[in-house]
Amino acid sequence: MTLQVADSYQIEIGSITQKHFDWLRGKEYAGWIVFADDNTVIDCLPLIEHYLPEGTPVVVAPEGELNKHLGTCQELWEAMFEAGVGRRWCAICLGGGVLEDMSGFVASTYKRGIDFLQIPTTLLSMVDSSVGGKLGIDFNHVKNSIGVFNDPVAVWIDPAFLKTLSAREVRSGYGEIVKHALIADREQWEAVKTITKLEEVDWSTIIPASVNIKREVVLEDPFEKGLRKSLNFGHTIGHAIESFWLETEDRLFHGEAVAAGMIMESWLSTQLDSLSGDDLEEITTYLLKIYGHQAVPESAFGQLLTLMRQDKKNEDSRINFTLLSAPGSARVNATAEPDMIVAALRWYNGLG
Amino acid sequence: MTLQVADSYQIEIGSITQKHFDWLRGKEYAGWIVFADDNTVIDCLPLIEHYLPEGTPVVVAPEGELNKHLGTCQELWEAMFEAGVGRRWCAICLGGGVLEDMSGFVASTYKRGIDFLQIPTTLLSMVDSSVGGKLGIDFNHVKNSIGVFNDPVAVWIDPAFLKTLSAREVRSGYGEIVKHALIADREQWEAVKTITKLEEVDWSTIIPASVNIKREVVLEDPFEKGLRKSLNFGHTIGHAIESFWLETEDRLFHGEAVAAGMIMESWLSTQLDSLSGDDLEEITTYLLKIYGHQAVPESAFGQLLTLMRQDKKNEDSRINFTLLSAPGSARVNATAEPDMIVAALRWYNGLG
Repeated sequence: MTLQVADSYQIEIGSITQKHFDWLRGKEYAGWIVFADDNTVIDCLPLIEHYLPEGTPVVVAPEGELNKHLGTCQELWEAMFEAGVGRRWCAICLGGGVLEDMSGFVASTYKRGIDFLQIPTTLLSMVDSSVGGKLGIDFNHVKNSIGVFNDPVAVWIDPAFLKTLSAREVRSGYGEIVKHALIADREQWEAVKTITKLEEVDWSTIIPASVNIKREVVLEDPFEKGLRKSLNFGHTIGHAIESFWLETEDRLFHGEAVAAGMIMESWLSTQLDSLSGDDLEEITTYLLKIYGHQAVPESAFGQLLTLMRQDKKNEDSRINFTLLSAPGSARVNATAEPDMIVAALRWYNGLG
Repeated sequence: MTLQVADSYQIEIGSITQKHFDWLRGKEYAGWIVFADDNTVIDCLPLIEHYLPEGTPVVVAPEGELNKHLGTCQELWEAMFEAGVGRRWCAICLGGGVLEDMSGFVASTYKRGIDFLQIPTTLLSMVDSSVGGKLGIDFNHVKNSIGVFNDPVAVWIDPAFLKTLSAREVRSGYGEIVKHALIADREQWEAVKTITKLEEVDWSTIIPASVNIKREVVLEDPFEKGLRKSLNFGHTIGHAIESFWLETEDRLFHGEAVAAGMIMESWLSTQLDSLSGDDLEEITTYLLKIYGHQAVPESAFGQLLTLMRQDKKNEDSRINFTLLSAPGSARVNATAEPDMIVAALRWYNGLG
């Protein structure tokens, strides 16, 4: 299936075939270069490499959020120079969100920008980073704080890559599917909350529905002036938690941190918006069933608040949230005082 | 005087006054941050600082092309975090081409991009980098090889800043004025070639004419697919020479390197295009009178060719040039074989 994103590019969802690469060949690039990571070069590249011309350079980035920084960008830019990549080349970015965000940024800034194509290989990147043109890296301990908005020439989503993932990775990506439903589509939420066994989900139907929610939000507000901020639901607290645990052994996957964030921000929604207690309970019960509970030590509260204050979503010193008025309905540009946020963290801890 | 650049922004040429800053205040940014360099913070900031709200953060970058790299960008990004700069802030970039290119890039990638305003303080940046949205830094020994295209909210060109420059800096910037005339405006070339004393030029008339040539070229071809490449005249060899001497004590200013490049590429234009011998002589005589002659050692030829091959203007392994068919008329996408380029270097050396 094809989803049109503005005039600029299309998202193809389904098996990647010769047809896809024929289309790419039709664009007459001077060359192709593949970006992969330590994992996708082994697990995912074999699914497409027979479509690539012999000698296509493949650049492998170290995997994981901890490597999503300027140092890795330098290695990738150097590899592009070494491969003789020119302005009329196209980069094929094969990986999860980290690789997609970083290699897209690298392509968008190499010689002031070359075209790039995204082939997301994780559930998270299929339903989230594949739409919306957000590219970048972490800097100064703040996630995605250096980057650009830029669209790929196309996104090819092939659920076959999901077989290369661990159950935990699939669960992490699923968090964004829950989020899309909660912020914009009550009907989808009614469907999603009946899912209890992720290994039995038919991804070929649920991915297009979820991508489409994001697509509609992004088309209406590409540069995050308003509506698009609704996608940040669960992410103000979620990003802080993810950053806090990033350099520890218990590090949380993005979707796990966001699930905890969605629980806490749903509680904030009952305090600062009109979310009902029944809806809060339903959301909380569902997310705890899927993701379990990870207590947040009181000693971390100060640092978490600091991280939230640095979040690029804030427009001044206040901490910005997207809250739910009801399942399927979000309100952007809400703020919460530190005391209230601490109360949310304590309330969440009490659920454990 | 006001030059409109597409719908997106205006270039104001003339004294910077309270009116300018009232207009900026009307845009209701959450804050302003000033980028300057070691020189402009001393020489230029005093001309505008009484218009800035008390406490406006001023970030000072080390001056010069050798500092136009990723390490300096990191310092600037860190300073922005420290100053609490949010997405709705505006950066005011006060400096020459190096500072404008680099701080514009830093602003365009900080939190995926904040607005920025350019106040060019050198003749080079007034007539060249002020129009066209090219931002970036040097990387891997290649000039401007990492960057983006992005337009400022406005450019304010005030010839008063020229008084802060050395005669050599003025002469460097003047090279682009000559170039604009040669590639696109024969009449302007007839006027320019009568100028022999740069200290007597009325910049308030010559700058608008020159900026306007560049503006018309860029409006027609913002992303350098074709016509805009005409602005690269003199720059294929000029950039290589500039890079080669960059780390030496005799380093050439940009305009000096480009003047030598224009002489050699004019010679190539007689060999590979229809430029007449008389025009070549006129161009050569004029440029040598203004810029003198700087011999290029034979031992450097190999490295210069390597630098030219890495130039981001090339679309494959061939070395790309813009040549003149006649003064005022350029042809883009010409190529020259290494032997021919070496011949141009030798011919130039013979002029000394």
